[in-house]
Amino acid sequence: MKRVYLDNSATSYPKAPDVSKFICDYIDNIGGNVGRGTYQTSYTSGHVVYETRELICDLFKFSNPLNVVFTMNITQSINMLLRGILKKGDHVIVSSMEHNAVMRPLTSLSKSGIFFDKVQCDIYGRLNPSNIEKHIKPNTKLIVMTHASNVCGTIMPIEEIGNICRKHGLYFFLDSAQSAGVLNIDFDKLNLTALAFTGHKGLLGPQGVGGFIIKDDIVNEINPIIEGGTGSLSESEEQPDYMPDKFESGTLNIPNIFGLNASLKFIKSIGIDSIHQKEMELTKRFLDGIQNIDGIKLSGLNSVEGRTAAISLDFVNLDNSEVAFTLDREFGIMTRVGLHCAPSAHKTLGTFPKGTVRFSPGYFTTFEEIDYTIESINKVIKML
Amino acid sequence: MKRVYLDNSATSYPKAPDVSKFICDYIDNIGGNVGRGTYQTSYTSGHVVYETRELICDLFKFSNPLNVVFTMNITQSINMLLRGILKKGDHVIVSSMEHNAVMRPLTSLSKSGIFFDKVQCDIYGRLNPSNIEKHIKPNTKLIVMTHASNVCGTIMPIEEIGNICRKHGLYFFLDSAQSAGVLNIDFDKLNLTALAFTGHKGLLGPQGVGGFIIKDDIVNEINPIIEGGTGSLSESEEQPDYMPDKFESGTLNIPNIFGLNASLKFIKSIGIDSIHQKEMELTKRFLDGIQNIDGIKLSGLNSVEGRTAAISLDFVNLDNSEVAFTLDREFGIMTRVGLHCAPSAHKTLGTFPKGTVRFSPGYFTTFEEIDYTIESINKVIKML
Repeated sequence: MKRVYLDNSATSYPKAPDVSKFICDYIDNIGGNVGRGTYQTSYTSGHVVYETRELICDLFKFSNPLNVVFTMNITQSINMLLRGILKKGDHVIVSSMEHNAVMRPLTSLSKSGIFFDKVQCDIYGRLNPSNIEKHIKPNTKLIVMTHASNVCGTIMPIEEIGNICRKHGLYFFLDSAQSAGVLNIDFDKLNLTALAFTGHKGLLGPQGVGGFIIKDDIVNEINPIIEGGTGSLSESEEQPDYMPDKFESGTLNIPNIFGLNASLKFIKSIGIDSIHQKEMELTKRFLDGIQNIDGIKLSGLNSVEGRTAAISLDFVNLDNSEVAFTLDREFGIMTRVGLHCAPSAHKTLGTFPKGTVRFSPGYFTTFEEIDYTIESINKVIKML
Repeated sequence: MKRVYLDNSATSYPKAPDVSKFICDYIDNIGGNVGRGTYQTSYTSGHVVYETRELICDLFKFSNPLNVVFTMNITQSINMLLRGILKKGDHVIVSSMEHNAVMRPLTSLSKSGIFFDKVQCDIYGRLNPSNIEKHIKPNTKLIVMTHASNVCGTIMPIEEIGNICRKHGLYFFLDSAQSAGVLNIDFDKLNLTALAFTGHKGLLGPQGVGGFIIKDDIVNEINPIIEGGTGSLSESEEQPDYMPDKFESGTLNIPNIFGLNASLKFIKSIGIDSIHQKEMELTKRFLDGIQNIDGIKLSGLNSVEGRTAAISLDFVNLDNSEVAFTLDREFGIMTRVGLHCAPSAHKTLGTFPKGTVRFSPGYFTTFEEIDYTIESINKVIKML
């Protein structure tokens, strides 16, 4: 059976061309640790890891490779940032479109004297920046926000939010899970304080490697929540206070950093603009295709403006889970059904608790696959 | 030039035969997420991840695959366990041979009302279990200890410590960084409460995947320090309280879990006893070989009894760093010099702050490589 992968918002597939090759080459032929051995292969690994930090800088127009920290995934990055910086009495502002990677740590922290407010977005997931300022209090420390919704792709007005943060002296943390590798991001221009990223979605790398970048200003303000061997300052039982060692304890995921290195080079060679354009053409084809299908309700924006390629549909008279199962079983189309770890977003979009079927094409998706998906959706509606 | 890898205590090399093959097969041909998609490749990934949990159970004679948690590395595992369970006023006992993966989080926690005592080991790194009981206080909650020293290989008397924990109702957390895949470990017989492991040392898997296993008794007592999307209980902004989701937030490192799956199957096919025997034969060959070399001081035990294959040498009249550099540059021998992220252990062994050159053969090291290393050590001493 034909197989069409439309779950790129969860993890991209296929990966960039050389990802597995770089990983296997490291595992089979290099194999050294970083910053721990005095031998050549350890230096080789160290070089590639450092180059990957530079590629991350290049992608986000960020200047200091030493302030690039690698983690296991973006959830870990967000937890390290929020738990590391928030203190009793602090107040945080989020949108109503956040993923649980932001909402769960905040909900947990709210039990120990940290406060947060959700700024309500409209039924399309759009945030009105002027609503933000109403929530700013004397103890507001930061705004943390997704760049684009993982449910329906709606893009947040982060330039305006960056300006608000500048005006009020707030920190601004960006969750780039759905935008890195797909939208242009300029760390300084956006007035970001920290940006969390993951390697396995739009960055087209393997699962198991994510990270964050932070401004120098807050390095001393964030306490690490994970401490241990860093291969540096080995004489001390205290964590080093310099970057990136302060936040990189234990052995790094070197093979997957090699994989991410390959995928970042691929993205650089194609260019974000071309990737974005291709994804928007796919999105347009999809949105046009579903235009006249009865029994479908689109969540979020019905245009390519202001969105990414994540497209959420509610099959109003059907069981969305059954639709997703049938699309896979009968037509080989892989989607993701449910609440997408974002109950607040679904409440905003009016699709809670039923959820939606999310179709998320990626750079490697073809127009023919989109056409086949539209045909198949038509058939499934008739079948069920 | 000939290349001899003797840094297996840092990370093993080569890895088990199918590690890179399993990883690439996942990345290139499978690619689904786990517990998030409703499509077939997502189930395939889910099956392999679950099977890997079972292989971990099998290795440590542990009964509940759902209580196997995957993390990025053992440092993260130890931090999650210690920070998750310790509360203000609690007291912890450790040995003086611990790695900074244990010492740094404890040192940090000691600044917020958590206490710990180090039980002094002798100059060979040996712990006298009767010294433990002297340190038990009414507020002692747990003993956390390495199974074997990463500096000199000395094995801790963990059976006796398990009995002490049973007698006094203490929790017992084992750091198996240097023993998993090399020594037999029976979770229940040792009266363990939690065991932290890493995939990339004796387990012969890739870097980037480690984990921990915990007894049912303490699941509710440990708070997660990382929360977020788990693909489960998506309607809630609170972390699920069931295993393993409670501690597995964000996308798992699926490719590397595939790699670990391959290496655990390899270890199972060879058997821990055969691996241990091979490593002890290599160790004996090495210890015999250095017996009559002047200017070398062995740290730790001068026998194969009570140790693993990590062998630390001090080149008393030379600069150990220069020895390690020369061994690599002139003879292609990869070692690790310094304090090995274990300053307390080096203080115990009398090698602080100078450190040692550590030679750590692994299962794939050959006797011929050991002989070549001994010859090369002789030459280096004459050269420098």
